[in-house]
Amino acid sequence: MGKFKYLFDPRAIAVIGASPEAHRPGAQTIRALQDNRFDGRVYPVNPKYPELAGLPCYRSIADVPKPCDIAVIALPATLVPETIAACGAQGVRFAVVLGGGFREAGEAGQRLESQMLSAAREHDVRIVGPNCLGLVNVHARAYAAFGSLARPPVLSPGPVSAVIQSGGFGNSLVVRCGLAGIGFRLVVASGSESDLGTPELIEAMVDDPQTRLILIYMEGVRDGPRFVAAARRALAEGKPIVVWKAGNTRQGIKAAASHTANMTGSYDIYRAVFRQCGVVEVHDMEEAIACVQSLLVYSDRPAGDEVAIMGGSGGSAVVFSDAADRYGLRLSRLAPQTSAVLKRVLPGTASLDNPIDYAAGFITNANAARFRDAVDAVLDDPGVSQLGVMLATTTGEAAANGGKVLAEAVARHAKPVFVFLSVPRETTAGGQDALERAGIPVFPTPTRVALAMKVLSEYEKARSELHRLAAGRMADSPPPATQFPSYSGALSEHESKNFLAAWGVRVTADRLIPAAPLEATDASGWTFPVALKVVSRDIAHKSDIGGVQLDIANADELVNAVSEMLERVRARAPEAALDGLLVSEMIGDALETIVGVVNDEVFGPVVALGMGGILAETLQDITYRLAPFDLKTAHQMVGELRACAMFSGVRGNAAADIDALAATLVTVSNMSWHLRNRIAEVEINPLLVRSTGHGVVAADALMRFR
Amino acid sequence: MGKFKYLFDPRAIAVIGASPEAHRPGAQTIRALQDNRFDGRVYPVNPKYPELAGLPCYRSIADVPKPCDIAVIALPATLVPETIAACGAQGVRFAVVLGGGFREAGEAGQRLESQMLSAAREHDVRIVGPNCLGLVNVHARAYAAFGSLARPPVLSPGPVSAVIQSGGFGNSLVVRCGLAGIGFRLVVASGSESDLGTPELIEAMVDDPQTRLILIYMEGVRDGPRFVAAARRALAEGKPIVVWKAGNTRQGIKAAASHTANMTGSYDIYRAVFRQCGVVEVHDMEEAIACVQSLLVYSDRPAGDEVAIMGGSGGSAVVFSDAADRYGLRLSRLAPQTSAVLKRVLPGTASLDNPIDYAAGFITNANAARFRDAVDAVLDDPGVSQLGVMLATTTGEAAANGGKVLAEAVARHAKPVFVFLSVPRETTAGGQDALERAGIPVFPTPTRVALAMKVLSEYEKARSELHRLAAGRMADSPPPATQFPSYSGALSEHESKNFLAAWGVRVTADRLIPAAPLEATDASGWTFPVALKVVSRDIAHKSDIGGVQLDIANADELVNAVSEMLERVRARAPEAALDGLLVSEMIGDALETIVGVVNDEVFGPVVALGMGGILAETLQDITYRLAPFDLKTAHQMVGELRACAMFSGVRGNAAADIDALAATLVTVSNMSWHLRNRIAEVEINPLLVRSTGHGVVAADALMRFR
Repeated sequence: MGKFKYLFDPRAIAVIGASPEAHRPGAQTIRALQDNRFDGRVYPVNPKYPELAGLPCYRSIADVPKPCDIAVIALPATLVPETIAACGAQGVRFAVVLGGGFREAGEAGQRLESQMLSAAREHDVRIVGPNCLGLVNVHARAYAAFGSLARPPVLSPGPVSAVIQSGGFGNSLVVRCGLAGIGFRLVVASGSESDLGTPELIEAMVDDPQTRLILIYMEGVRDGPRFVAAARRALAEGKPIVVWKAGNTRQGIKAAASHTANMTGSYDIYRAVFRQCGVVEVHDMEEAIACVQSLLVYSDRPAGDEVAIMGGSGGSAVVFSDAADRYGLRLSRLAPQTSAVLKRVLPGTASLDNPIDYAAGFITNANAARFRDAVDAVLDDPGVSQLGVMLATTTGEAAANGGKVLAEAVARHAKPVFVFLSVPRETTAGGQDALERAGIPVFPTPTRVALAMKVLSEYEKARSELHRLAAGRMADSPPPATQFPSYSGALSEHESKNFLAAWGVRVTADRLIPAAPLEATDASGWTFPVALKVVSRDIAHKSDIGGVQLDIANADELVNAVSEMLERVRARAPEAALDGLLVSEMIGDALETIVGVVNDEVFGPVVALGMGGILAETLQDITYRLAPFDLKTAHQMVGELRACAMFSGVRGNAAADIDALAATLVTVSNMSWHLRNRIAEVEINPLLVRSTGHGVVAADALMRFR
Repeated sequence: MGKFKYLFDPRAIAVIGASPEAHRPGAQTIRALQDNRFDGRVYPVNPKYPELAGLPCYRSIADVPKPCDIAVIALPATLVPETIAACGAQGVRFAVVLGGGFREAGEAGQRLESQMLSAAREHDVRIVGPNCLGLVNVHARAYAAFGSLARPPVLSPGPVSAVIQSGGFGNSLVVRCGLAGIGFRLVVASGSESDLGTPELIEAMVDDPQTRLILIYMEGVRDGPRFVAAARRALAEGKPIVVWKAGNTRQGIKAAASHTANMTGSYDIYRAVFRQCGVVEVHDMEEAIACVQSLLVYSDRPAGDEVAIMGGSGGSAVVFSDAADRYGLRLSRLAPQTSAVLKRVLPGTASLDNPIDYAAGFITNANAARFRDAVDAVLDDPGVSQLGVMLATTTGEAAANGGKVLAEAVARHAKPVFVFLSVPRETTAGGQDALERAGIPVFPTPTRVALAMKVLSEYEKARSELHRLAAGRMADSPPPATQFPSYSGALSEHESKNFLAAWGVRVTADRLIPAAPLEATDASGWTFPVALKVVSRDIAHKSDIGGVQLDIANADELVNAVSEMLERVRARAPEAALDGLLVSEMIGDALETIVGVVNDEVFGPVVALGMGGILAETLQDITYRLAPFDLKTAHQMVGELRACAMFSGVRGNAAADIDALAATLVTVSNMSWHLRNRIAEVEINPLLVRSTGHGVVAADALMRFR
C-alpha cells in the first residue's frame, strides 16, 4: 500500500479551524465524522474553545495526540503555510486544505502557494487541495471533507475510488453512480492540485488493494507523462480507469478557464492519450454508470467485438443493431452447431439468425430448460464473445425464468452477458434481482448494452496493445551518429530536411545553390523539372513572399527563375539573411499528407497525421498519437483518417504506399521522443506518399527547437 | 375529433376469440379491461362458451349489442377476412387484428392480407395491425391490447399519445417515459400497418383534443408525403412529434428487415424529412424522456439558442458548456443592466460572466431574495432566451430556496428554465417537488439541460420556417413553356442539359456535331479550349470507354481528337447509337459540386448537394432536402457541408458564388417537384461554382425519367 496508507486509512483526523458555527467548513467536517461514525479519532483544533461537538478541543496541532494522520485545515490562506509546518513537526503527514486564496487569487495568492509548498516539502507533509471539498474513505467513514462531499446521500462501500477535479460536479457524478448501486472506496476532491495531482492519486489508488476501478472527473492534468505512466500501470494491473474529461470545446474551455486554475489543453491530445492508455472516456452520467458497472464485473473477461443478441422484441434488436454499427461491434455469424441447437429448442416462429428472436412469450416455466439450452449454445459459440439479452418488457414468470437462467449461465461461461429490461423491478417476479445478484448489468435501453460491449472490447484491445508495446521495446533505436550543431529556433527547409534525412526520413533530392545569379552551364546535367525555393531561417512562409516556384522545366527557365526570385525576395523581405536557394526534385503522382510533431506542454511530443493539399484546409481530418509508438499504431493512424479511402487509390490512381507512410510516422515518433527536451515543432508538409513500393518523400519540412 | 373518435374512445369493445386460457391473447385483453376497470362495455365472443370471465359470451359478433366500436380479433389469419366483414355488418367500425400470418408470411399470407383489406373497404371497417399488440386509451382505461401493452406497469393518464411500430420495444419506450412521470393519452402499436399507418394515426392524434404531444417509435413509413403532411400539420398546431427512428445503419437495417415487413429506406432522407417538418429525433431513452418533458412544458415558449447558466458548481458549467458547443447553443453575453444587478446581489467571490457562478453555499435563507433578484435579472435580459440552473449537489435549505425561487420565476417569465440536480429527491427539503410542480424539468446531468435547450430552439426554428414557407408560396413558379418530347429512360448529356437549361439552370456552351470526322475549317472561329464528349443515351459512363477528352487547345487538336474518340468508342461500345459529339466550353477556376435528385420511393423527390471532384470520392459529405424548398433552405444546405469552408475561398481562391448555387438548388427542387411523377433521377456532376457574381455552370448532367 505504501506511502499513502494513512491518507486513505487515517487513524485520526484533526480539524484545524474547527468551529461551533454549523455552516463553517470545519464544523461540517466534524459533524460528518460524527454522524457517519468514523472508525478513528477526531481532534478539533481551535484555541478559543475547550470543547467542540462534545469532543475535547486542542489549542494547536502541536497539542494533538499521536498518531494523527490527516489535518483538515479550515483556515484563511495566510495562515496555511505556518500550519502546514506545524503539522509536519507534529508528525501529521497529510493535510487537506479546504479554502481558496492561492494561485487562482493573483500574485499574493501565488506567493502563499509557494510558501505552503515549501513548508510541505521541508516538513514532509503532502497536501490535498487547496480549494477543494476534501477526501472521504467510504469504507472507514473517514470524512476529511466539507460541503456536498460531507453531506447525505451517504455512499455505500465498494470497490470504486474517484478523483474529482471539480468538487461540485465531480461529486454529482459520484452521487449518481452511488444511486445506481455502485459502491465506493475513496473519493478525493483534488481541488487546485498544488501538491498531490491526479496522476499521483491514480498511482496511489492503483496501489490500494481495496480499489478495483478508478473514476475520474477532470478538466486537465499538469504532469502529462506521469498521468500516462499511472494510467498504463492501472491498465497493466487490470484496474480500469473511467474518465469524464470536460472543458473540451471552445465554450467549455472558456468556462473551465474562468472556474479553476486547471489547464485544459488540446482535447485531441487527451483523446489520443486516453486511447493509448486504455482509459475509458465517458460523456454523460448514464454512460459513466454503465461503463463502471460493466468494467467492475467483466474487465477480466476477454471480450471481443463479435456479439450476439437474443430476445423476444424485434424492435430492441433493431435499436441495438443501430448502436452496434455506430460502435463498431459486429453481429456474429453463428456456427452451424449453434444454429442446430437453436432450431431444436426455439419455437417455429423464432428467427434463428443473429439477432436471435425467440418470439415474445417464449420463456414460460415449461420452456425454461429450452431457453437455457439456447443461451448455453450461443455462449459456447466460438464466434460470439459477448451476449446481450433483450428482455425489454418481459414481466412476471417469464422475467423470473429469464433472470434465473441467465444468472446460472453467466457463472458457467466466461463471456460477458448483459440485459436490456425496461419494466420496473417489482414487475419482474425477482428476475431483475436474480440478474443483479449474479452481477449481470441490467440496462434500461438496448443502446447502453451496445455501449458496454464496446467499452469492454476496447478495454481488451488496449490491454493487448499494452502487452504488444511492452514486448516491442519501442523507441529503443539509437539516434543517428551524425552530430548536429546545437540548433535553436527555426531551421531552414534545407537544414530541417538534412536533419530528418539523418534520422531516416526520405526527402527530395535537393541542391543548395548560392543566392546569386545562375549560369545555364552550371545546371547542365541536372534532372528537370525542379522546384526553386528560397532558403532562410528568417522566412517561415516562403510562398507568401514569392519564394517558391514549381515545375521549372529546363536550365534556361531555372536561370530566369533564380534572378526573378532573388529580386522578389529582396524586395519583399529585405531584412532576411538568405542561406541560398534550393533546387528540388519534383515528385509527381503522389498523395499529399502532412506529418507533424507538437511538443505538448502537458504530454510531450505528439505526432499528428493529416491529409495535405486542399483536404487539409477544408477538413479537420487529423489524428494524433503520443510518441513513441509502433508500426501497428501508425497503421491505425492512417486508418482513422476520414479520407483514408484515398490511400487505396481513387480516380484510377494506384494504391498509396501505406507501409512506408507508417514507417515514417514511427521514425518521426522515435526522433521526437529522443529529442523531447529539445524539439519544439516539426511540420513535414507535404509528405508525399507514392504508389505502393515507391515510398514516401518529404517535399518540404520545417523544424523548430527550444 | 372526427372519424377516429370511437377508435380512441370506444363505448364497447368486443373480443373475438376470447378464451378461458389466461395466456391466450383474447383472455389477456379481457383481463386487462377488467383489471383496469374500463369505462365501457366488454363483449367476449366465442361460440364455445356461454360465459367468460364473469361476462356473457356471444356466439358471434353479429350477436353483440350495439353500439360496439372496436372488435379485438384474436383469431388465426385465415378467419380474419370474414370476421372483418361480419364486424362491418354489425356496425363495428374498428378492428384490432392481433395475430400475424399476413404479408410477412409469404404468398398465402399476402393473399389473406388483400382479402382482409377488401373486406375492410367493402364493409367500412378500419384496421389496427395485424401483427400488433393493439391499442390503449389510458384515460378511459380502454385496453384493446394484449401482451406487454396489457400488463403492468399501468400508465398514468396524461397528454402524450404514442404510435409504436414495434410493440415490444416501442412499449419499452412508453414504459420508461411513464416511469419518468410522463402521462399518456393513447398508445397504438400499429404492427404491420396494413390499413392504418403511422401518418394517418398522427393525423388522428393531431385531431384528438386530449393529445398535446406525439411520441413515435418507427422503423419506416410507407406513405412519405402523407407523413410529411401530417407532421407539418402537427407542427402548425403546436403538437410536437418526438421520434425514435431505428433501422438506420447497415446492421440495423438488416435486423429490421428480418423482423417486420416495414421498409426502412435511406436514413439520410428521413433525417432531412424530420428536420424539414420540425420532428424531434431522439436516439436513446433518456433523450426521449428529456425531449418529451421539455416540449410538454415549453413548446409554446419562443426559445432561441442564446442561453444563460447559473449555479454554484463550476464543473457543471464546464460540462454544460461542452454540450452547448456540440449542440450549437451560445452562452449569451449579458447586458450591462444584468451584470449590474448580479454585481449587487451576488457574493464577492461570484463569477458574474455567463456561466454565472454564484459560489457554492450561496442560496441560504438569508440570501433567497438576492437569488431571486439574480434569476429575475437574467430572465429579463433580452439576450437570454433560456436559463439553466446547475443546482448539482445542492441539498436541504439551499435546495428548498432554489426550488421556491425558480418555481416563482418560471411563472413570472416567458422563458424556459431547466435545472440540473443530482441528489435524491428526499435530500432537497421539498426543492425538487417545488420545481416539478412548477413544471420545471429537473435533469440528473447538465448535458441533458443542453439537449433540452437545443431541442426547444430547433423546434422554434422549425415553426418559424413553417410560417416562412407558408408565406412564400413555394414552388408555384410555372414550368417552362418549352415542350419536351415524352422522354423515358436515360437522356443523353446533351438532352439533359437542354432540359435543365429550359428550367433555368445555366449549362456550358455546347455544340453538338455529327459523329463523323471534322475538318479544321469547320471549327474556325470557335473559342478554345474545349472538351469533347460522346453523346449517346446508350452510354452512361462516357469516361470508361474513352468518351471524354478535356483541354483541347485548338482546331487541329480537335480534329484529331474527334477521329480518335470515334475510333475508341466504336471499338469499345460497338452497339451504342451515337447522337453525335459534344464540343463543350471549358470552365476554369471553379469549385466542383454535385447536385442530384433522387425520387425516393417513400418520400418523392429529394435534392442532394455534395462536394465534387476528389472530395466526393473520399468523404460522405452530402446533404439532402425534400423538394420543394426555398432559398433560405438552399443556403442552409450549403452551410451544412463539412467542406463548406471551401466556398469562402481557400488557398487564395476567391469566394464562390453561393447565391447562384443556392438559386440553382431551388430551381432543381422546383423542377423535380413539378415532375415528381415522371422524374427518376438527376445528376449534375460537376456543377461548377465560379467566384462571387459569376454564377454556376453545369458541365455535365444526366437525367432519367420513369
